[in-house]
Amino acid sequence: MTAIDLNSDLGEGYGAWKVGDDEAMLAIVSSANVACGFHAGDPAGILKTVKAAAEKGVSIGAHVSYPDRVGFGRRDMDVTSGELTADVIYQIGALKGIAAVAGTTVGYVKPHGALYNRIAHDPKQGQAVIDAIMAVDPSLVLMGLAGSPILDLARKAGLQVVAEAFADRAYQPDGQLVSRREPGAVLHDAQLIARRMLRLAYQGTLEAIDGSTVTIDAQSICVHGDSPGAVAIAREIRRAFEADGVRVRSFLAD
Amino acid sequence: MTAIDLNSDLGEGYGAWKVGDDEAMLAIVSSANVACGFHAGDPAGILKTVKAAAEKGVSIGAHVSYPDRVGFGRRDMDVTSGELTADVIYQIGALKGIAAVAGTTVGYVKPHGALYNRIAHDPKQGQAVIDAIMAVDPSLVLMGLAGSPILDLARKAGLQVVAEAFADRAYQPDGQLVSRREPGAVLHDAQLIARRMLRLAYQGTLEAIDGSTVTIDAQSICVHGDSPGAVAIAREIRRAFEADGVRVRSFLAD
Amino acid sequence: MTAIDLNSDLGEGYGAWKVGDDEAMLAIVSSANVACGFHAGDPAGILKTVKAAAEKGVSIGAHVSYPDRVGFGRRDMDVTSGELTADVIYQIGALKGIAAVAGTTVGYVKPHGALYNRIAHDPKQGQAVIDAIMAVDPSLVLMGLAGSPILDLARKAGLQVVAEAFADRAYQPDGQLVSRREPGAVLHDAQLIARRMLRLAYQGTLEAIDGSTVTIDAQSICVHGDSPGAVAIAREIRRAFEADGVRVRSFLAD
Amino acid sequence: MTAIDLNSDLGEGYGAWKVGDDEAMLAIVSSANVACGFHAGDPAGILKTVKAAAEKGVSIGAHVSYPDRVGFGRRDMDVTSGELTADVIYQIGALKGIAAVAGTTVGYVKPHGALYNRIAHDPKQGQAVIDAIMAVDPSLVLMGLAGSPILDLARKAGLQVVAEAFADRAYQPDGQLVSRREPGAVLHDAQLIARRMLRLAYQGTLEAIDGSTVTIDAQSICVHGDSPGAVAIAREIRRAFEADGVRVRSFLAD
Repeated sequence: MTAIDLNSDLGEGYGAWKVGDDEAMLAIVSSANVACGFHAGDPAGILKTVKAAAEKGVSIGAHVSYPDRVGFGRRDMDVTSGELTADVIYQIGALKGIAAVAGTTVGYVKPHGALYNRIAHDPKQGQAVIDAIMAVDPSLVLMGLAGSPILDLARKAGLQVVAEAFADRAYQPDGQLVSRREPGAVLHDAQLIARRMLRLAYQGTLEAIDGSTVTIDAQSICVHGDSPGAVAIAREIRRAFEADGVRVRSFLAD
Repeated sequence: MTAIDLNSDLGEGYGAWKVGDDEAMLAIVSSANVACGFHAGDPAGILKTVKAAAEKGVSIGAHVSYPDRVGFGRRDMDVTSGELTADVIYQIGALKGIAAVAGTTVGYVKPHGALYNRIAHDPKQGQAVIDAIMAVDPSLVLMGLAGSPILDLARKAGLQVVAEAFADRAYQPDGQLVSRREPGAVLHDAQLIARRMLRLAYQGTLEAIDGSTVTIDAQSICVHGDSPGAVAIAREIRRAFEADGVRVRSFLAD
Repeated sequence: MTAIDLNSDLGEGYGAWKVGDDEAMLAIVSSANVACGFHAGDPAGILKTVKAAAEKGVSIGAHVSYPDRVGFGRRDMDVTSGELTADVIYQIGALKGIAAVAGTTVGYVKPHGALYNRIAHDPKQGQAVIDAIMAVDPSLVLMGLAGSPILDLARKAGLQVVAEAFADRAYQPDGQLVSRREPGAVLHDAQLIARRMLRLAYQGTLEAIDGSTVTIDAQSICVHGDSPGAVAIAREIRRAFEADGVRVRSFLAD
Repeated sequence: MTAIDLNSDLGEGYGAWKVGDDEAMLAIVSSANVACGFHAGDPAGILKTVKAAAEKGVSIGAHVSYPDRVGFGRRDMDVTSGELTADVIYQIGALKGIAAVAGTTVGYVKPHGALYNRIAHDPKQGQAVIDAIMAVDPSLVLMGLAGSPILDLARKAGLQVVAEAFADRAYQPDGQLVSRREPGAVLHDAQLIARRMLRLAYQGTLEAIDGSTVTIDAQSICVHGDSPGAVAIAREIRRAFEADGVRVRSFLAD
C-alpha cells in the first residue's frame, strides 16, 4: 500500500502570542516540525505542543532557525559555521529535553524559513547544519527540499534524509518552486491541491506551472496550518488520501 | 581521605561579550556551573566552555536562570510554575545536547542568581524547579544553599541534592549568609578564606561573623571567577587543600 | 456637555505575531496606549499603529513595560530604580521618534501590565517611573489606576495625571478592582457595561459588586481590544455615549 | 587652523557585560558613536555613557544596528526596507530620549558593523537608512565610509554627510580598506598611525599598502577603544595632533 508523510510547522507561538491551531493540525499530520525557541516557541508553549503530538502519535522534528524572533527566522543571516553549528545543537538539545518530558523523542530536523532556503543551495551553511546533527545525534533524519543539493551533501556525510514537497506551491518544469513573487505561485483550491498530492503519492510527479510533467521525489508533504484556509486544505488532502487508500504515516515509521 | 568539591559559574559571556577566565578556573575547580542561555551563554560560547571542561574532567552542571539577559538573571521574577518548569527543562535539554557533542554529560543543576535565592525559601518556585528536573532526568543532582529548605523539598521529591557553601562570604551564627549590604559580608583575604575552607572541609564548621562557631553541612564550595582577584582566591583555596591533603574532586565522583 | 476619554492597548503584536484589530479599535477610542517594544511591539508594527492613530486623530500614549517579551510584561520584576528609570526613558524616546515620523506626538505615559500594578502601590518603582517622565518630558501626562497612590505621588512631583477606570471589571465597595480570581470580576454583557460607563461619565459612580455605590474619579475608560468580543463591547460603549450625548474625546484635548 | 574629528564606538556593554573604557575614550575623542540597544547597549548603560559624553562636551551619534545582540550586529541580515527604516527610527528616537535627559542632543547617525558595511555599497538598504533619518530628523548628519557610494546617495536625498577614515587600517591604492583577511590590514604601531593621521589631516592623503599615495576625503577619524592597546593608540593620535597644532573637535562644531 502506498503511504506518505504529512508534515506541518507547529509550536510557532511565543508567550502570549498564538499562531495557528496546533490541535487541529495534529489530528491531520503525521509529523510535527516544532519551533525550538529561535524564531518562535517559548518553552511552555513548545512543551504543550510536544505533549499534544505525543498523545496523537505524531513524530517530532526540530524546526531549527536562525536566532531572529522579530523576523520570525525569515531573514537570511551571514552567521559563521561555528555559530550555526552550535545554534543547531542547542535547539535540538532543548527540544530533546522537552520531548523526553513528554514521553516521546525527536526524530528529525527541519531547518526553518531563511535557513531552510539558504542551506538548500549553500554548502557552507548546509555543512554546518549537518555537522551539528552528526555531532548531537547522527540517527536524526534531515528533512529538506526535494531535489536540492543539501540532501546529497547530508547523505554523503552519513545522515538519513527525507525530501519534502509543498502542497500549496506551484513547481517549475525543472522541479524548483515557482517564486512567491510570480503569479500562480501559491495554490488555494483544496480539491485541486488534494488531486495533485494524490498524483505525487502514487506517481511521484506533478503538473508544472507550464503544464509539463515534473518528477518530484518526495517522502513527505508539507502542509501549512497558520490560517483557517490552510487547515481546511490540509484536512482535504488527508481526506483524499484516506478515501483513495493512501496511508498517512510518519516516514520514521518505515 | 577528606575530599570536597569546588564549583564555579562559567560560560557567562554572551557573543562578543566575555566574562571571567574560564580556562583558568577549569584548572582549579571540579564542577562547572555552565550558563544555559537565559541569563548568559550563547550556544557557541557554551560549547567552548563545555568542551574545555570535558577535556579537564570537570563535572558539568546546568546553571539555569530566569529569562533575563539584560539583568543577568539577578532580578526576582514572578513567573508561573508552568513557565518555570518548562524554562528549566528547556535549558537542561539544551545543555545536555551540547554536553553530548563535547563527549560529556550534565550531572547536576544549580539555579542561578535571583532564581537560586528565590527557591532557597519559596516552595512554589522551588517545586517547579524540582518538577522540571524529575521530569527531564531524575538522576540529576540539585545543588542548593547549605541549610536552605529547598534541599529538603528536593530530597522528599526523590532528588539527590548537594549543599554548597560560599568561600568568600561571611556567615551569621544561624548559618545564613550575611547580606551583601552589611559590612564584612564579602571576604577578600585569600589566605584567610583558604583557612576557613580547610576548617569547613575537615570539621564542617565556620567562624560566624560574631566569632561564634556555626555548623555548615556542605559538600561543595562555590568560588567565583569573574575577576582577577577571584581567580587568585580560588587558586589559593585549591593550593591550601592540596597542601593539606584535602582532595578536590566532584561530588559526582563519589 | 459631558465628555470622556476611551483608551485601549494597541500595537501589541511583534513581528509576524499579530494581536487584536488595531484599525477597528482606532475607530472607537480617543487614546491609544502603544506598546514600545519591551513587552510587545516591533518598530515597523509600532510605526504602522502610530500612523493609523495619527490619521484618525487619536492621542498617543507610551505603554511602557518591564523588559519581558516572553511574559508579555505581565510578570512582576525586581528591577532597580536606575534600570527602571532608564528603561522608561528609552521606551518613551523610541515612541517619540516614531510619533515624529507619523506627524504626531506622544501625549501621555501608561505603564503596562505588571509594572502598572506594581507602581499603583509601590512608591519606589513608582518614583522611578515618575523620575523618567520628569527627565525626558515633564509635559507628558501619567495615566494610572483611579484611586491609587501613584497618582498623588506623580502630582506631588509636578506631573499631570489622568485616572482611568476599567470598563469590563467589577469594583469593590472601596473602589478597588475585584481580583480576576474572584467570580464576577470580569463583565461580559456589552449593554450592562455601557450603562455602567454612562453612569460613571455622568455621576462618577459605579455599582460595586455588593450592590453599594462607589465613587470612581476617572477621566478615562480603558476598553480592551484583543478579542472580537472586546471590540464589540468597546463599540457598544461608544455607541451608548454618542446616543446619550457624551462626547468621546482625548483628555489631552481639554 | 586645521581641525579634525575623532570618533569612537561607545556604550557597547549590555547589562552586566562591560566593554572598553568609555571614560578614557571620552577624554580623547570629539564624537561618540553610542550603541542604541540593537547590537549593544542597555538603557541604563547608554544613559551613563551619554551623560559622561555630555559632561565632556563630546558630540553624540546614534550607532544604529541590525537587531542582533548575540552577533553584536556583525552579521549581514536581509531585512526589508520597511523593517530597516522603522528599526533605525526607533533607535534614533530612543537615543534622543536619553540625550534629552542628559542635557545634550543626538547630532549624527553612524550605522554599525554589518549594516555599515552593507549600506556602503547596497543602495536599497542605504536608502532605507536615509529614509529613516530624513523622516525622524533631517538635520542629523550621516557618517559613512570615505569614498563609499552611500555618501552621494545621502547627499542627493538632502542629508548632510561626514566621511570617516579608520586610523588603524591599511588602505588600497583605490581608497578602499584592505580586507581584514589580508596581511597588514590592521596597524598596531601607535606612532606610525599618528603620523599617518597627521598626514591625513593636513594633506588628505595616506600611503596605501603598496606604497602609493591615496587621497582620502575624510572629516572624521575612527579610533577604537575596546582594548587597552586601542586606547593607547587613540591617545597617541590625540597627542600628536595637539603637539602639531591640529585641533580635535567635532564636525558638528563647524
